[in-house]
Amino acid sequence: MSFVEELGARIEAADSVVSVGLDPDMERLPEDVQDAELPRWAFNRRIIDATHEHAAVFKPNAAFYEDSDGWRALRETVAYAHGKGVPVLLDAKRADIGNTARQYAEILAHVDAITVNPYLGEDALQPFLTQDEAGVFVLCRTSNEGGMDFQHLELAAYDRRLYEHVAERAAEWNAQYGDVGLVVGATAPDELQAIRERVPELPFLVPGVGAQGGDAEAAVEYGLNDDGVGLVNSTRGVIFAGEHGSAWAAAAGDAARTLRERLNRHR
Amino acid sequence: MSFVEELGARIEAADSVVSVGLDPDMERLPEDVQDAELPRWAFNRRIIDATHEHAAVFKPNAAFYEDSDGWRALRETVAYAHGKGVPVLLDAKRADIGNTARQYAEILAHVDAITVNPYLGEDALQPFLTQDEAGVFVLCRTSNEGGMDFQHLELAAYDRRLYEHVAERAAEWNAQYGDVGLVVGATAPDELQAIRERVPELPFLVPGVGAQGGDAEAAVEYGLNDDGVGLVNSTRGVIFAGEHGSAWAAAAGDAARTLRERLNRHR
Repeated sequence: MSFVEELGARIEAADSVVSVGLDPDMERLPEDVQDAELPRWAFNRRIIDATHEHAAVFKPNAAFYEDSDGWRALRETVAYAHGKGVPVLLDAKRADIGNTARQYAEILAHVDAITVNPYLGEDALQPFLTQDEAGVFVLCRTSNEGGMDFQHLELAAYDRRLYEHVAERAAEWNAQYGDVGLVVGATAPDELQAIRERVPELPFLVPGVGAQGGDAEAAVEYGLNDDGVGLVNSTRGVIFAGEHGSAWAAAAGDAARTLRERLNRHR
Repeated sequence: MSFVEELGARIEAADSVVSVGLDPDMERLPEDVQDAELPRWAFNRRIIDATHEHAAVFKPNAAFYEDSDGWRALRETVAYAHGKGVPVLLDAKRADIGNTARQYAEILAHVDAITVNPYLGEDALQPFLTQDEAGVFVLCRTSNEGGMDFQHLELAAYDRRLYEHVAERAAEWNAQYGDVGLVVGATAPDELQAIRERVPELPFLVPGVGAQGGDAEAAVEYGLNDDGVGLVNSTRGVIFAGEHGSAWAAAAGDAARTLRERLNRHR
């Protein structure tokens, strides 16, 4: 089954397009997991227990696992999410050249999909794109202020901005390799709409709803493709919803369910 | 001391602008390190022993350390290189948003410099840029075929291509934060020259000499800034120079010395 088919099946089964980000910031972990052998894994396990019914995917960001224990915690987390029937999208924003890209792409043996950075061009992404049944979400228009610096530049040809050209190229890659999506921030709904009209078939991963204050309605309306496949992510708004209390896992579950319901009103 | 000052001092002391890439591809490691507890670290240690006199920096690529044992091997490698007085530039090509970028930037507590990807803009790089005494090499024009896909696009304004605009912005960041360099491939010497003329003050990291077949003379002539500070990298051409023999470490040492001499003829 292709990743997009798998994701579509999961969205239907969970009745949810919620992506739950798993960014276990060591400085914010609750006291009752801090003494675990792998605090990040202990935290993620309880978050997964509390939220998996409401999650279309779990999305760990690689930045929070970049050390020896971190990679162990990530492996455990991925296996546990899979045990709950939830696909895992690794938010790694990777890209590199030749044999190095092939090395990075080996992580796709463990996770179901990954985010990648387009700046190095198609051949740098090929090791990801050519993996069967693996999803590849290409950074297109990001929700941070710096998204204006380069992504927003107008090109001399094509009558497009850079991020629009990235979207068009990603659609070509999708036609050739399959299972390609885009990462498009929710903080600029007009642009989200314009990109959707340009590439109706691609699923989007829309971060920026929640802590980053994006527009949930636009995220759903334009984030999902023709078949209703797409993802709206929240990380801190879910996993740290109950940060200052002992019932933090239950609070995360409530936050995930509330977000699912809020998004489902627009599906 | 700023990173660029530290690098300049090291270049002078070693009389070398050679960057030795440390990409311990598990499928190519010699038999006599394969049974070590951490084969990548055992390999790197012997490579460092054999090459450190000829190295201005060591440049491990993060892709080859992306697992639990990998990060242990990387930490050992960095400490050992530092023990030999050689700075470490982590080739990570990272960039992310907000708190995630801050998380990635924590690696700069352990290494001396890092490569980053500009697509997400200035604020995504700020946690790297604002670290005192840490070098930040921004991907500008890469030597792979896909470097044409986006980097080479002409912009509607500025009368520049995207990679030229990245170079200009990096020069602004250097003026503001200090210790900024560029990654510019050696496979397009004309472009290397044009970028050098645009930003005379920035040190370049020039990969692509060696396995990728770039032009060593152009790499030196245009890779070094006004003060003679810059780096020319070789990875597989050094570390796997003696891949099929038992004297692989000595062969790596010979390859590094030969490259140093070849580059020094053009300094």
